[in-house]
Amino acid sequence: MQNRQIILKSRPVGRPTADNFELKEIEIPTPAEGELLLKALYISVDPYMRGRMSDAKSYVEPFQVGEPINGGAVAEVTESRHPDFSAGDVVVSRPLAWQEYQTVPATSVQKVDKDSVPLSYYLGILGMTGLTAYFGLLDIGQPKKGETVVVSGAAGAVGTAVGQIAKIHGCRVVGIAGSEEKLRYLKDELHFDEVINYRTEKDMEQAIARTSPDGVDIYFDNVGGEISDAVMANINKFARISICGQISLYNATSVPTGPRIQTTILKKSALMKGFIISDYAERLPEGMAKLVEWVKEGKLKNRETVIKGFEKLPEAFIGLFDGVNTGKLVVETK
Amino acid sequence: MQNRQIILKSRPVGRPTADNFELKEIEIPTPAEGELLLKALYISVDPYMRGRMSDAKSYVEPFQVGEPINGGAVAEVTESRHPDFSAGDVVVSRPLAWQEYQTVPATSVQKVDKDSVPLSYYLGILGMTGLTAYFGLLDIGQPKKGETVVVSGAAGAVGTAVGQIAKIHGCRVVGIAGSEEKLRYLKDELHFDEVINYRTEKDMEQAIARTSPDGVDIYFDNVGGEISDAVMANINKFARISICGQISLYNATSVPTGPRIQTTILKKSALMKGFIISDYAERLPEGMAKLVEWVKEGKLKNRETVIKGFEKLPEAFIGLFDGVNTGKLVVETK
Repeated sequence: MQNRQIILKSRPVGRPTADNFELKEIEIPTPAEGELLLKALYISVDPYMRGRMSDAKSYVEPFQVGEPINGGAVAEVTESRHPDFSAGDVVVSRPLAWQEYQTVPATSVQKVDKDSVPLSYYLGILGMTGLTAYFGLLDIGQPKKGETVVVSGAAGAVGTAVGQIAKIHGCRVVGIAGSEEKLRYLKDELHFDEVINYRTEKDMEQAIARTSPDGVDIYFDNVGGEISDAVMANINKFARISICGQISLYNATSVPTGPRIQTTILKKSALMKGFIISDYAERLPEGMAKLVEWVKEGKLKNRETVIKGFEKLPEAFIGLFDGVNTGKLVVETK
Repeated sequence: MQNRQIILKSRPVGRPTADNFELKEIEIPTPAEGELLLKALYISVDPYMRGRMSDAKSYVEPFQVGEPINGGAVAEVTESRHPDFSAGDVVVSRPLAWQEYQTVPATSVQKVDKDSVPLSYYLGILGMTGLTAYFGLLDIGQPKKGETVVVSGAAGAVGTAVGQIAKIHGCRVVGIAGSEEKLRYLKDELHFDEVINYRTEKDMEQAIARTSPDGVDIYFDNVGGEISDAVMANINKFARISICGQISLYNATSVPTGPRIQTTILKKSALMKGFIISDYAERLPEGMAKLVEWVKEGKLKNRETVIKGFEKLPEAFIGLFDGVNTGKLVVETK
């Protein structure tokens, strides 16, 4: 039985390439007392990982060159040396190395119900992205019925959850995404009120004005850059801007510049807040309970793109920056 | 008993002169039902009034030629035809004409405590600038003991109040201003912990780092632009940025650009909020009560220059442009 891992071979400069990664064969480790041997089933591939591949100081530690990448994953217990777990149990763990088999302390994982929902949901709508949407929209955005919510990166894992949760709260939802297929999905399946294709739209500022005739009350920002400039030009008095991601800028090799937004924030008495899901660590059970409830009621759909094959992890990650995915991007290891 | 007013006789071109004003004697009016007859006690003289003397479109209406100038004032009720007011009450009103006696609707004024603080303070630290500092710092900044507060435009009316209120809350205060005389005042009289002269400082980002070795928890921004870039480069996780003004950008003829700050706001889980004092209209009495308390306790100082004589108003106003005043300039009518 082989065991493989994917290590960070070199730090990307600008857009990551296949050369930045290396697939290595290693031994399958043996669990010590209190540990579990896990086999990864589904591995999460996320834009924020690009930041960790740089050496720059950030809100999370950088990955180490020569060490495996790590992140969220769903795994099966293949051998347990802890009384609370048995072979065949399924757990979620964060972080888990990009590695087929690995040992972890049993205390670092959380057992999940393996029969009620597809296991990959724990990396999507019931995972960090669903919780990120939940707190970023509800705690920072404070949506009120009838308000207009604009979400960029709308077809992404967080974006689709944001739009659906905003609809649950009676808001008018405008989604911005980069392909007609994504827009159709947002409109037809998730019932977004308006959608904008930022790749084909000639004038984004006018597109926001056209689709948000009463102005923008909440902007959930996953992308940053010029798309955000266009939204900011249309915000209402007392608007709330939840900064969840800035994917359009992550590959920038110098400090990105743009219009100074403080003047707009001042004139509109607007609130802008950045966050990371760990800011809400103490409130995660509350969020999870609500998300599960909405999934059961059929109010919240999980959209995912599953790429098969452990060795496809680097390719899947690089593809994020080309928008290959609709919804959560996960790699199924088999 | 005479009544006098000062009218705008002609619009100044360049620096105002005495010829632009005229002192006129008029009748003392009689209050109608629901009105008060007021006698002006202290009249505010402000640089912004120069703009209103021109015919140019602005955010406030221009003064009319042949009509009295108007602005903030403290006045005594000499006759009341409203049940909530009695002769002898002192009120603040904005705007009030540059006129010794006038009638106003009782609903347009606010009664103030006339015994515990000097009445001119209601045009300074206990006026709109003090309240602006109060809400912008406390509601948005949420200062905690031991935190570092940086304030730009620190020697201005709002900035001096911000620094003093931050000190009352046990914060470490760093003030940014543009002259050595101002810095001395902030340090020696208002007990700011650190001061920075942005005109002579070579590297503002390093200057902030040097004077805020533990990073910046709260930034009260009056100026915007490059000074703010330097502060933003030094903010802490969970920093709060209160956007009160952007004076460095007001004369810009095209959209000012600069580093995109959303990335910083995201990485630091920071909060940025713009505001104008009218956002807090319902909470003004609460703020005023606290400010009065601190003034009485000697914790909050008001800096002012008082010129005596109603007829000196034009001369006082013209003197603004020669820097006759230190702190708030007011005219005492008697």
